[in-house]
Amino acid sequence: MSKVQKIINDPENIVAEVIEGLVLASHGKLAKLDEVPALIRTDIEEGKVALLIGGGSGHEPMYSAYVGKGLADASVCGNIFASPPPNFIHEATKAVDRGKGVLYLYGNYAGDVMNFDMAAEMSAEDGIEVRTVLVTDDVATDKPEDRRGIGGAFYMVKIAGAACATAQSLDEAEAVVRKAQANVRTIGVAVRAGSLPETGEPTFELGEGEIEIGLGVHGEPGVERSTLMPADELTTRMIDRLVNDLPFQRGDRVAMLLNNLGATTQMELLIVNRKARALLADKGIEVARTDMGAYFTSQEMAGFSITLVRLDDELERLIAAPCQSLPFSQ
Amino acid sequence: MSKVQKIINDPENIVAEVIEGLVLASHGKLAKLDEVPALIRTDIEEGKVALLIGGGSGHEPMYSAYVGKGLADASVCGNIFASPPPNFIHEATKAVDRGKGVLYLYGNYAGDVMNFDMAAEMSAEDGIEVRTVLVTDDVATDKPEDRRGIGGAFYMVKIAGAACATAQSLDEAEAVVRKAQANVRTIGVAVRAGSLPETGEPTFELGEGEIEIGLGVHGEPGVERSTLMPADELTTRMIDRLVNDLPFQRGDRVAMLLNNLGATTQMELLIVNRKARALLADKGIEVARTDMGAYFTSQEMAGFSITLVRLDDELERLIAAPCQSLPFSQ
Repeated sequence: MSKVQKIINDPENIVAEVIEGLVLASHGKLAKLDEVPALIRTDIEEGKVALLIGGGSGHEPMYSAYVGKGLADASVCGNIFASPPPNFIHEATKAVDRGKGVLYLYGNYAGDVMNFDMAAEMSAEDGIEVRTVLVTDDVATDKPEDRRGIGGAFYMVKIAGAACATAQSLDEAEAVVRKAQANVRTIGVAVRAGSLPETGEPTFELGEGEIEIGLGVHGEPGVERSTLMPADELTTRMIDRLVNDLPFQRGDRVAMLLNNLGATTQMELLIVNRKARALLADKGIEVARTDMGAYFTSQEMAGFSITLVRLDDELERLIAAPCQSLPFSQ
Repeated sequence: MSKVQKIINDPENIVAEVIEGLVLASHGKLAKLDEVPALIRTDIEEGKVALLIGGGSGHEPMYSAYVGKGLADASVCGNIFASPPPNFIHEATKAVDRGKGVLYLYGNYAGDVMNFDMAAEMSAEDGIEVRTVLVTDDVATDKPEDRRGIGGAFYMVKIAGAACATAQSLDEAEAVVRKAQANVRTIGVAVRAGSLPETGEPTFELGEGEIEIGLGVHGEPGVERSTLMPADELTTRMIDRLVNDLPFQRGDRVAMLLNNLGATTQMELLIVNRKARALLADKGIEVARTDMGAYFTSQEMAGFSITLVRLDDELERLIAAPCQSLPFSQ
């Protein structure tokens, strides 16, 4: 695979420029935190439970573009595919706290867990209560405790943002986000690698015509390597693995996200949607809501993920609650 | 460039499956027109001025995913990069007309103009009044009358949809959409070719490391071929050409769309946004609103376009009016 050329300036300055671009795109709704690579809302409501998200950069719009009214209050930006350090997370925690404590929500990756946990301890010393819920939706990992956070972060952030906007306490917000965590599952597939933006080198090796089901958003190994197959066959394998995992059952009502990992067209996602809906209908699972777009990417990786979240009235209402950010600007 | 492998089924069946996928994603809001490859709203209001859009498939979400409340009433789908034939457009015209006439809005391509004009004549024989406004925003064509319709279609459809939702007459709707047409300009750049989904072959030839400014969404020639340059330099060339064209002037208030042509990351668009905003501020042009995403694509072409639309109070209000479709579902 030849090197990918990106529309960037100094590779060392990508994260700073992305933050600047987001601040400008927000038209006054977001600011950069002083001396910290973090985005923060300019109008966080007094007395609200705060929501802090974050992780490695390079997955835009996840996480930083999900800061906004009804979503996260701040996001801490690591370098490309790297966790933000604890002191930055700690500074952002102090900046968002409005006296009711701070909920941390991020993907289950070792570096992030270590750094956010350290920041939580530092914040506790300042008298700020922190709770943590991890995104752990990737069914392509055997042990549930090792599960990575991928496309399901979209629904988790949406639900957490809406919950924190109205929750009376950190306990109340944490409980509903834990419920979301328990009910969200994702499976991904890559058909071409993305690249490291600093160098243009591919993030992993995938032979011509090969695909990998369950591959992670940084190129972590998946569960099944194969050659490209028709969309319907691929969708069947993915839906079966997804439904069997929770398991989702006859009578369940779900929201479904078809997430573009970078270079896959909406044309392809629509073709997948047909088959996914037919398979779910056969299993007696009702899709109440469909989301489709590039919501958690891995640079220009070609591929997509399917996320299902099992709904109850509360989760359905929170997903549909009004919010405002760049991916939700309309 | 090696062949691109797509997640599809039978290449001959792409358009039909995309339509099926859109109908399902709409949860009852859209239907397929009987025996015609067209999407139509299931709840078109009686007595409204109808808006019909359409063109070649392969640019998703343009045009068909912009059918919805506050947007278009129907879209007619051609084959990949090919105009829909007149009889299909005629059938869709009859289906959307609610007695106040039908506004056609589509990109200025010879095949589309010929076929939509024929359909307008056929509809006139049925007593349905049709008016046509073309999207002609691409500044990379010398003669204004030859100008192609590219990313500016996003704002044109949004404005036309909002205008038709409330207009008392076809005259009134046409007038405001003509005003939008006169005030929208776009310039694009491609850094890697997309592919024809049926074959995987690239839509045009671009050497390793080459870029083309002004290239069309089907690979039509642009105005300047170059090697990849830093994002700030590229943005400067594009903004200068764009601003000088209308020209946009000191004191103007604009909405800006950074449109991903397929495989460009939001990371890159955010970096471009910084520089675009700095350049426009220097020129005394105020950006009142920013849109960013894959709204008019050319398969997995890497590249983007910048659209500016000069706002007055009416256009600003219409762009911000509520609407509902897959790309605007949030």
